[in-house]
Amino acid sequence: MTNVESFSPAGLSRSSADSAPKTGIVMLNLGGPATLDDVQPFLLELFADREIIQLPFQRWLGPFIARRRTPKVRGLYAGIGGGSPILRYTEAQGRGMVARLDRLSPATAPHRFYVAFRYTRPSSEEALRRMHADGVERAVAFTQYPQFSCSTTGSSLNELWRAAGRTGLRDAFDWSIIDRWPVHPGFIEAMTGTVRDGLEQFELADRQKVLILFSAHSLPLHVIDRGDSYPQEVGASVQRVVESLGVPNPYLLAYQSDVGPVRWLGPRTEQVIRRLGARGQKHVLVVPIAFTSDHIETLSELDREYGEVAHQVGITHYKRAPALNDRPRFLDALAEIVRDHLQSGAPYSTQYPMRCAGCTNPQCRNVLNPVSSRMRS
Amino acid sequence: MTNVESFSPAGLSRSSADSAPKTGIVMLNLGGPATLDDVQPFLLELFADREIIQLPFQRWLGPFIARRRTPKVRGLYAGIGGGSPILRYTEAQGRGMVARLDRLSPATAPHRFYVAFRYTRPSSEEALRRMHADGVERAVAFTQYPQFSCSTTGSSLNELWRAAGRTGLRDAFDWSIIDRWPVHPGFIEAMTGTVRDGLEQFELADRQKVLILFSAHSLPLHVIDRGDSYPQEVGASVQRVVESLGVPNPYLLAYQSDVGPVRWLGPRTEQVIRRLGARGQKHVLVVPIAFTSDHIETLSELDREYGEVAHQVGITHYKRAPALNDRPRFLDALAEIVRDHLQSGAPYSTQYPMRCAGCTNPQCRNVLNPVSSRMRS
Repeated sequence: MTNVESFSPAGLSRSSADSAPKTGIVMLNLGGPATLDDVQPFLLELFADREIIQLPFQRWLGPFIARRRTPKVRGLYAGIGGGSPILRYTEAQGRGMVARLDRLSPATAPHRFYVAFRYTRPSSEEALRRMHADGVERAVAFTQYPQFSCSTTGSSLNELWRAAGRTGLRDAFDWSIIDRWPVHPGFIEAMTGTVRDGLEQFELADRQKVLILFSAHSLPLHVIDRGDSYPQEVGASVQRVVESLGVPNPYLLAYQSDVGPVRWLGPRTEQVIRRLGARGQKHVLVVPIAFTSDHIETLSELDREYGEVAHQVGITHYKRAPALNDRPRFLDALAEIVRDHLQSGAPYSTQYPMRCAGCTNPQCRNVLNPVSSRMRS
Repeated sequence: MTNVESFSPAGLSRSSADSAPKTGIVMLNLGGPATLDDVQPFLLELFADREIIQLPFQRWLGPFIARRRTPKVRGLYAGIGGGSPILRYTEAQGRGMVARLDRLSPATAPHRFYVAFRYTRPSSEEALRRMHADGVERAVAFTQYPQFSCSTTGSSLNELWRAAGRTGLRDAFDWSIIDRWPVHPGFIEAMTGTVRDGLEQFELADRQKVLILFSAHSLPLHVIDRGDSYPQEVGASVQRVVESLGVPNPYLLAYQSDVGPVRWLGPRTEQVIRRLGARGQKHVLVVPIAFTSDHIETLSELDREYGEVAHQVGITHYKRAPALNDRPRFLDALAEIVRDHLQSGAPYSTQYPMRCAGCTNPQCRNVLNPVSSRMRS
């Protein structure tokens, strides 16, 4: 565990020096454009993903919308420093996680992490190729979304299995999946820490007046109506964080980042902020409850855009709880989640096989070479 | 507080023989028509409640719709034995609760319960008058809805305070409120017991194949968009019951009983059942998660109506978990919830003052003579 960094190929950690990794952990997330020039390719990928966006004539309309949105989105990324910090944070999370895992779970060590982003690099194909080159056989697909949605974790997993086919690595690994962790005690404790830090941004005398506004990325109602488990799991996360927090502040859950003409799950975070201001609320702490790293939705939407709205409507003290990012308690949590998963021996959560009642996608809820079936055979 | 006993009307429990009650517990619920002749008055009250239904020209359109729906709803109640069992169950719950409370909380004994239904008798006015006649001074408004919604608990509380004004009893009692209990351990344990009983209705060999379908009453999206906390709290209840249950069955949360032209929160229970059947699910256990007694939505909608749907779509084994009704563990839970509340000394939950962001009703979240303010003065 000493000379790790120098060996690791760009963007990957080595958990235990030169020894071949025994367990590869694929960290799944949507990703974000690292530079302004990556914005358009990112949007092209996003608008091509039929698992989250269905457009008529998608092969033409998707690129059209992506290109039309590029200047605006480039501007947003320019405003937060010229790119998304998600790769940097995910790598920090991965490094912290595998270092801890090697201690927590020596039987499955050495561990190595591989980042697989859905709409930008490193892609699932790259992660799989690197993992194969490293000699990994036992692989864990670890979603970085705490609460499951077909639009996020579901799409990433389906892409991972497709990428395994495209790269000829369909049989290269024994897989298991960490498909959700909305109330894992480590996650809840880490998230509670961010809320405490958020509250401490207010003057002590004001702290009791703070309304805690949990904000999660919204979903179109047609996804909700299909039976997506996301709102149920977000509700459970919020409840657990509030209990763990143990402060008397009132709280509220709202949903952000809806776009386009269809109706999305509410209440809308922006509208809630407007209404809170209108009725005289002066102190608001926004808590991103469904995403683990800072990204455009925290740095630009919550901080800048809604911060401006809050200012306009008279919320004199508008703050945001920090994202989990690389806080040590969260790195602990990530390692604990993987350890608990490995110890369970289960190929996935009991909830994973539960396709949405309205699912029409035959790719959903598959898993390549699940580890426990091989162990049984 | 001595010579009240002779005033106590029939239909109410005595918790401790003839001694005057020290603590009155008002059990708030929507109620239901006890006989077929009560159906129309019930619907008239329901469609007059602007806190849950806003109609243009409500004073005319409300009664019109209520009268038009009466024959159909009478038919539904005829099909479940000629009336709602909610009063019978609420009285059984109240009796069990106060008997336990007298043991659990001797300092606040004797306890007596008073039923206050929103749309049928006994009304809030009756409950208040009886409580006054009994010599009660310390009163607890105890919602019988585990998860808070402005449409249910909110409406009942507002009506209780209005009734206190109408009856001249505005200053008769020191109040505190039990406004929600979505994850109270006693409730969760009792609810988990109903799911276990539900699973035991299946053959042992089939039990692992059962999909657990939690079903809660839906709300119109405009209520959700206002910031009602109901879906978050229902999600939390589901998560806690599933954890407490500890079985590997997949589960899903859906919402039932939407009516009228506006869009409601989904997924719709009925549609979920249709889709589960269409994809070959044969074993479904429906669990009413947001209501404590059997009522038209369990006995008629879940059992008969959706049972018929399930049969049509090939769900060969469709069962429903029993309602909490008068199961002893639930009577324990009710007493524990009140005991915990009384011990806390709090006038209401920390969440109660949190009006919906979009609330426009000045009556909301008030409380008459909160007990702690008197204690302080």
